[in-house]
Amino acid sequence: MKKLINDVDDLLAESLDGFALANPDIVRLGPERQFVARKARKQGKVALISGGGSGHEPLHAGFVGTGMLDAACPGQVFTSPTPDQMLAAAHAVHGGAGVLFIVKNYSGDMMNFQMAAEMLDMDNASVIVNDDVAVENSTYTTGRRGVAGTLVVEKVVGAAAERGEPLARLKALGDAVNNATASMGVALTSCTVPAAGSPTFQIGVDEMEMGVGIHGEPGRRRVRLASADDIAAELTGAILRDLSLKPGTDVLLFVNGFGGTPLLEQYLMVNAAHKVLEGAGVNVARHLTGSYVTSLEMAGCSITVSALDAAHMALWDAPVHTAALRWGM
Amino acid sequence: MKKLINDVDDLLAESLDGFALANPDIVRLGPERQFVARKARKQGKVALISGGGSGHEPLHAGFVGTGMLDAACPGQVFTSPTPDQMLAAAHAVHGGAGVLFIVKNYSGDMMNFQMAAEMLDMDNASVIVNDDVAVENSTYTTGRRGVAGTLVVEKVVGAAAERGEPLARLKALGDAVNNATASMGVALTSCTVPAAGSPTFQIGVDEMEMGVGIHGEPGRRRVRLASADDIAAELTGAILRDLSLKPGTDVLLFVNGFGGTPLLEQYLMVNAAHKVLEGAGVNVARHLTGSYVTSLEMAGCSITVSALDAAHMALWDAPVHTAALRWGM
Repeated sequence: MKKLINDVDDLLAESLDGFALANPDIVRLGPERQFVARKARKQGKVALISGGGSGHEPLHAGFVGTGMLDAACPGQVFTSPTPDQMLAAAHAVHGGAGVLFIVKNYSGDMMNFQMAAEMLDMDNASVIVNDDVAVENSTYTTGRRGVAGTLVVEKVVGAAAERGEPLARLKALGDAVNNATASMGVALTSCTVPAAGSPTFQIGVDEMEMGVGIHGEPGRRRVRLASADDIAAELTGAILRDLSLKPGTDVLLFVNGFGGTPLLEQYLMVNAAHKVLEGAGVNVARHLTGSYVTSLEMAGCSITVSALDAAHMALWDAPVHTAALRWGM
Repeated sequence: MKKLINDVDDLLAESLDGFALANPDIVRLGPERQFVARKARKQGKVALISGGGSGHEPLHAGFVGTGMLDAACPGQVFTSPTPDQMLAAAHAVHGGAGVLFIVKNYSGDMMNFQMAAEMLDMDNASVIVNDDVAVENSTYTTGRRGVAGTLVVEKVVGAAAERGEPLARLKALGDAVNNATASMGVALTSCTVPAAGSPTFQIGVDEMEMGVGIHGEPGRRRVRLASADDIAAELTGAILRDLSLKPGTDVLLFVNGFGGTPLLEQYLMVNAAHKVLEGAGVNVARHLTGSYVTSLEMAGCSITVSALDAAHMALWDAPVHTAALRWGM
């Protein structure tokens, strides 16, 4: 295993310390590193809290800040955080207007966030993200997996929370954005979980895993590596069948690198996916490109299409100031 | 070779098209994709033009925009752009106040930018970046290589150009920032140039290349993979010996991923390097962390330390709006 680490047991703690050192104007670490919290707190605002296993950086801690999350709870690599972390985060960052949890649909996360929600002594609700159209049910999931679309939900709901929208409205907004968002990914290589020390899966030199999950879970099928155009057509085709968009619909196209795929290839995939979408009569009104929801060093990418209406697009465009996403301020 | 591409010969063109599609508010492509130019032009401003081989994305095209570069000329992967490209870019983006070329010190780039400078029918000057302390002379270099410190030069000089500083002042500023900036990197794996189809170098499963260049050129020595703390101590130690900083000096610490190294590890390296710097009495006043000056999918990272004085730090902090760096606007 080739990684820039000291001891596997200290990896997460040392990385979180580095993250806090590097972003002192935006975040602070909670006691015992239970959560990453935004520094610029705001009274009267619904607190947005997300979290999940580490190894998907910059998700979620990189999205803590003005206009997005109030706190993120990091679990060990590919392991859910505990209800204690979520409760500690909620008590530390709430502004008296309740808490909205944003949860990716994995069994461990669902169980722990639900437990926290039940134990929390303040108004709360949860948005469950399940944007991955690749498979129904999966290694760690009942139902569809939550993947890169989580970023879109966190950004749009984060902007609305910043404007002072109440909890019930934010919950409905999060559900609506999740329903309007679909993703699918492809892996060319595996990743290696540090504590395991060997690749999560084996894959041939000429193979790809179509529909892979963000922990290297199996997707739809293992096939021979295809051209970028063919891959974009299959991913985007599956997404479009799921969303059933009317011609002329404005969408956000988010091409997400899984960690080991250069921007050079990611932008080539933007070009390929853009052609498919325009060919299907869909209008690509916004773009996001980069390695935002990763699987350690896995090579590959996912495509996310989010059919944001005008009001939701304005929330997407609203100012954001986090470690990983910054615009308008 | 596992890459998200169609045809190797079309890789750069399709990637540039995707880049332009994804950033329509910031950049436009020149004719025949000779350069990437910023959309928001400004009369009376010195034009900053950089460029170099592709495969280092987001460098340089990702730094075109307000507060940084006016144009970037992309060569094929790890291959210098041609003087024609630089001349076309200069004529397209100049604002009547001359042109400053920012050139990484590689023989091909030096020759081609020098030829463009001689042929250009307007005031111009060049800043040569050679921040890599790993080796004197190298595979493609006479003298030290220009690596991740190029970003710092482009950002600081870009901010001064945006404020209307004249050509001679910008040239002197660029030289001063280059002199105050030192970098060194380590590779855990090779990269694969698409046109070559096989890894640039072979490296054992327990080895690292200490002092590697951003094209996978050899560094100081091939040694057994060490701990992150030991790697940070060696890289940062070499940098500090080169810069000879007075205790209490404010610096920017830039930990740069080479493309295949997750943010989780990059932030761990921030933590490790921060300890070394603070231990040496240096004050880490600013941070930048991410995969900004890459070598395709190579695993590893570089550390850059830039001893920016108060005036230069203010230019670093100044607003920037590019595809890859955005703050303050």
